[in-house]
Amino acid sequence: MILLSSSNPKYSMCWLSYKPIEKKEYVQEVEKFLEQIVLLEKNIYFQNAGNELKKALGALFGTEPRLSNSVNLYMDSGIILGKVTNEKLNIFITEVEKEAVGEEGFLIKVIDENKRKYIIVASKSEKGIIYGTFHLINKFRLKTGLKELNCIENPKASLRIINHWDNMDGSIERGYAGKSIFFTNGRIKRNYKRIWDYARLLASIGINGVVINNVNVRDKAIWLITPKYLNDLSKIAEVFRLYGIKLYLSINFASPIYIGGLDTADPLDKNVQKWWKDTVKTIYSYIPDFGGFLVKADSEFNPGPYVYGRTHADGANMLAEELLPYGGIVIWRAFVYNCLQDWRDTKTDRAKAAYDNFKPLDGKFSENVILQIKYGPMDFQVREPVSPLFGAMEKTNQMMEFQITQEYTGQQIHLCYLGTLWKEILEFDTYCKGKGSYVKRIVDGSLFGMKYAGFAGVSNIGDSINWTGHDLAQANLWTFGKLAWDPDRKIEDIAREWTILTFGDDKKVVDNILWMLLNSHAIYEKYTTPLGLGWMVNPGHHYGPNPEGYEYSKWGTYHRADTKAIGVDRTSRGTGYTLQYHKPWQEIFDDINKCPEELLLFFHRVPYDFRLKNGKTLIQFMYDSHFEGAEMVDELIKKWEDLRGKIDDEIFNRVYERLKMQKEHAIEWRDVINTYFYRKTGIPDEKGRVIYP
Amino acid sequence: MILLSSSNPKYSMCWLSYKPIEKKEYVQEVEKFLEQIVLLEKNIYFQNAGNELKKALGALFGTEPRLSNSVNLYMDSGIILGKVTNEKLNIFITEVEKEAVGEEGFLIKVIDENKRKYIIVASKSEKGIIYGTFHLINKFRLKTGLKELNCIENPKASLRIINHWDNMDGSIERGYAGKSIFFTNGRIKRNYKRIWDYARLLASIGINGVVINNVNVRDKAIWLITPKYLNDLSKIAEVFRLYGIKLYLSINFASPIYIGGLDTADPLDKNVQKWWKDTVKTIYSYIPDFGGFLVKADSEFNPGPYVYGRTHADGANMLAEELLPYGGIVIWRAFVYNCLQDWRDTKTDRAKAAYDNFKPLDGKFSENVILQIKYGPMDFQVREPVSPLFGAMEKTNQMMEFQITQEYTGQQIHLCYLGTLWKEILEFDTYCKGKGSYVKRIVDGSLFGMKYAGFAGVSNIGDSINWTGHDLAQANLWTFGKLAWDPDRKIEDIAREWTILTFGDDKKVVDNILWMLLNSHAIYEKYTTPLGLGWMVNPGHHYGPNPEGYEYSKWGTYHRADTKAIGVDRTSRGTGYTLQYHKPWQEIFDDINKCPEELLLFFHRVPYDFRLKNGKTLIQFMYDSHFEGAEMVDELIKKWEDLRGKIDDEIFNRVYERLKMQKEHAIEWRDVINTYFYRKTGIPDEKGRVIYP
Repeated sequence: MILLSSSNPKYSMCWLSYKPIEKKEYVQEVEKFLEQIVLLEKNIYFQNAGNELKKALGALFGTEPRLSNSVNLYMDSGIILGKVTNEKLNIFITEVEKEAVGEEGFLIKVIDENKRKYIIVASKSEKGIIYGTFHLINKFRLKTGLKELNCIENPKASLRIINHWDNMDGSIERGYAGKSIFFTNGRIKRNYKRIWDYARLLASIGINGVVINNVNVRDKAIWLITPKYLNDLSKIAEVFRLYGIKLYLSINFASPIYIGGLDTADPLDKNVQKWWKDTVKTIYSYIPDFGGFLVKADSEFNPGPYVYGRTHADGANMLAEELLPYGGIVIWRAFVYNCLQDWRDTKTDRAKAAYDNFKPLDGKFSENVILQIKYGPMDFQVREPVSPLFGAMEKTNQMMEFQITQEYTGQQIHLCYLGTLWKEILEFDTYCKGKGSYVKRIVDGSLFGMKYAGFAGVSNIGDSINWTGHDLAQANLWTFGKLAWDPDRKIEDIAREWTILTFGDDKKVVDNILWMLLNSHAIYEKYTTPLGLGWMVNPGHHYGPNPEGYEYSKWGTYHRADTKAIGVDRTSRGTGYTLQYHKPWQEIFDDINKCPEELLLFFHRVPYDFRLKNGKTLIQFMYDSHFEGAEMVDELIKKWEDLRGKIDDEIFNRVYERLKMQKEHAIEWRDVINTYFYRKTGIPDEKGRVIYP
Repeated sequence: MILLSSSNPKYSMCWLSYKPIEKKEYVQEVEKFLEQIVLLEKNIYFQNAGNELKKALGALFGTEPRLSNSVNLYMDSGIILGKVTNEKLNIFITEVEKEAVGEEGFLIKVIDENKRKYIIVASKSEKGIIYGTFHLINKFRLKTGLKELNCIENPKASLRIINHWDNMDGSIERGYAGKSIFFTNGRIKRNYKRIWDYARLLASIGINGVVINNVNVRDKAIWLITPKYLNDLSKIAEVFRLYGIKLYLSINFASPIYIGGLDTADPLDKNVQKWWKDTVKTIYSYIPDFGGFLVKADSEFNPGPYVYGRTHADGANMLAEELLPYGGIVIWRAFVYNCLQDWRDTKTDRAKAAYDNFKPLDGKFSENVILQIKYGPMDFQVREPVSPLFGAMEKTNQMMEFQITQEYTGQQIHLCYLGTLWKEILEFDTYCKGKGSYVKRIVDGSLFGMKYAGFAGVSNIGDSINWTGHDLAQANLWTFGKLAWDPDRKIEDIAREWTILTFGDDKKVVDNILWMLLNSHAIYEKYTTPLGLGWMVNPGHHYGPNPEGYEYSKWGTYHRADTKAIGVDRTSRGTGYTLQYHKPWQEIFDDINKCPEELLLFFHRVPYDFRLKNGKTLIQFMYDSHFEGAEMVDELIKKWEDLRGKIDDEIFNRVYERLKMQKEHAIEWRDVINTYFYRKTGIPDEKGRVIYP
């Protein structure tokens, strides 16, 4: 192997920062099981899992268990890492249990008899053992009772992938936590230590794939699929492989032109196909378990099959055919829309674009093509309806794309925990196969029985000391992994677990941070763009308020506010976007009185004097929301201030500084948006609070 | 010398592209005088002027006059270049004439006797001879009759300087004509050929100074004043010197810290003074006629004396003292304002800043400090009132800063001839010493009898094929030089001369281009931000409409439009800006009914239903102005189309493409601004034209 992982003082290990367990009774209870670590398989994956476990036990319990490859079933105690199929485990594991452990799953079983005190962690394959190991370590850290350790865990979705929008110059598109850990100055970094630790973090939350380069593939990044870079990439793949993670690459659809010197990238062209076949073969000669390609085609100035009059299915299937023999997949982004819209054109509705582009192609994609769909129809706003593509493509592999990095949600300066929003999205019932057709059942593949399904999360990490800029933004990465593994889990439980693993289990610490996390998205929404309004941000960098920043642009993102009303009519009487949903959503979204209020301005053009359910006019709601939202930041600050002394000083101060910035910027949001509406309508605040003229 | 100048096919020579004179009678009349060129002085300046003349005569008349250094006063004919004080010219030049020629001036005198046919070009110093030479060449090209050649010309202002905002990476801040001709990739270019030709262009319009680096002095540019770059700079200075042009540098006020390693840049600190003394000495050891420093201090994040609790006089005078022994000067920019204003703050008025900062310092600046003042109080908008600093500083050297590059005026995509605007500014009567206290008399130094005065123009040239991107934008550079030489000239004459020298004297060509030039600023103003509104541009790059782009920013540039009114009240009842003017302007600007309408929204907050002098409401005027302005672009296009075949194809097409872009972008301006006002007011266009809702 390249090198051994070790702790590094230059950055934290987030929720994997092990500290000794102080509860004596628990230590005494568990210690009996820690005499040794037995590895029933002799390969680097089990060896690595054993190392992880040994290091953790040393840090948590102060023990130094020996690592042994042979098992004496009459030994006094130990943690056994093995495969469920290992004969030596037959006496402990039932056939039913064996069957229940899937390809990436694991079983934990505690044997607590007089002389036999074992904790068995058993997986079906090499992949599951690292998940089981981290699961056990974290359960110890949560001081989970021995009996409660018993479990069989399988990820619900097969694809749990992080998308890095890292550029080869080291910058990260929409990155708010430093520079890329993969690239610098046009080359691949050889700092495998940091990548190793990143792999550990990802494996501990069940991630099994990483796309390491930006979906906008330009310049040198186009060449990542060539031998010029494949040797370096194979080293990264080697690190990831140890932790059950496959390496993927974003590609430029026009690579046959850029790299191959062909005069076309037409997916039906024989030379193009041959070029891709050769390229794929080369890639797999360097990286035998290469995951596949992520493709942003015909989207925001990236080339694609449309250029040649071909469909997205033509494009995706061509690549898929070359990858299929190697087990590779094509992940094809559904983020396709007209990004040169004329603002005067009120017929075109960007919200409809993904559905319009892809719905006709349902059933036309190859078995190893997966459509990656952003959660909403626009672009990661603080609130959008669920994309109607979920539930519209019954014969197509589908993945949910979440944005872990806080592009429109405060850029890791504002605290904005995204788990609550994501959970709402996943629990949305599309009704595509009648009641109970939840999004979570679509993206875990079960509803339509698809082989490939899952989650893509746009990374929020960089080379900063705490990985995510805002320390509490680590919770977003954690939560993405945990939800991708099991979207049925309660979001409170996921957030609580993160809090304890990161900051310890002091009651006040847990209560306060949990409150902060669970309320932060609602607070951010209140003082920015509530009611599904969205887009009132500065163009380009997307930070801070700019009420008409996108109003006359080409991006198709307009609210068209005038003196009387605001919003785009996306009902059947307007652009017809609501018709992309199944019933009863069509009718619900279509009706201004039934539409969920948090999405009111997404679906409707609403007069300022329209009465909301609580009797407030729209304009008064806007004012109230902004005053309240900005004020609630004080509560976030207070909750944090209460923890002074209970949190490591460095982290405390870092978060505190950001909270103070958040307050300042929340006031800016409040004042700009309130003034904007006041100037637009001339209607004063009923409560007479300060709105600048 | 480094190399000889020659024509270069990679770029045009603008108004110095010589073509044979086709009018036979004129050629016959002049030819008699062209037998030889006699240089009465033996130095490189006269040699260079002689070369220029010889080359021109060859191109214009097809003659090959010999260059001789001795004069035989009984020779048949010739052009004599000499100093007015040369004894050999005593018989031709009177004492009165001699006295009338100033340091940079020249005399042209035609002696047309039987045997003696001379054209005498005589200057007082080496500097004037090149001006006289180009003057004569261009007069020939304008087919000026022999008798009308007689003249004595002196520049009215002593400083006629081009400011380059060129960065050392080769980019040009607010540059729209390619990359820098001076810098590339962090170093000084050694393409002296292009610089040589640039010097020729500048000398031909009377420029006598060039600041070659951006006033925002960052990174490597800070080090230009050190030996690391001075050797290369001395080569550039050598080229410029031949053409009567001095090299200046923009400096970073904190250089003693950055370069000197001192812990302060306090102008009253002895070590700081010593450091500058040594630095200046070093500079002059490389460039003996170095012009001096241009300083942007305490402005837009540039360091300055305020940091140390010192005044701008303290800062400027400290530098001036070190430059004085060498004849160098300090040009200190008055562009000082709070660029971190809170938009909620309605008391602070950026328009007042320059006056407030500098008025109290009148009389406190050293004799070799010149205050460089932007024409208006804001920042080169399409229309601003004259800065009240002109006329407020009776004991301070002052320069006018014009922006030749079209930052806010269409970025050399739109045709916007600036001569008409500049002329209006120069003709503004400040009344500071009673009626007749014109701005032009302030910036030529005559009104207050100041030694240093003049013009600074922010360059519009780059390394593009035609120097200025838009071919017709060459007229702006030409006009700047001509106005700086003599602000009393009629703008029509200046523009006509440029047109003929550039495109020939075909009547239609001259008429049409002249019409285009003289109307273009008014047209641009009409479809962008009329009535002194300004600032409705996209932040950052400043191209294209964005009605609220600056509304909530920190730049102090707000219109605060609401449903009822628009504009900032800058009268004595508002921010008090009008009080910075002398009477009667105070009263005129203060009165909404007397205020010149083209500045109405600069000085007043005006209700949309306010009636303008022509009876139109403000809102209707806005609509009309934008419809008319966009329509008038068709007239520009038509005037140009009429010239097809009469203009070199390459130039014709280049301009034509830009005119078509202008039309498209004018429509965008029209529609965005009209829609903005319509959405803001709900008031429809009286004439029922299309305003998008």
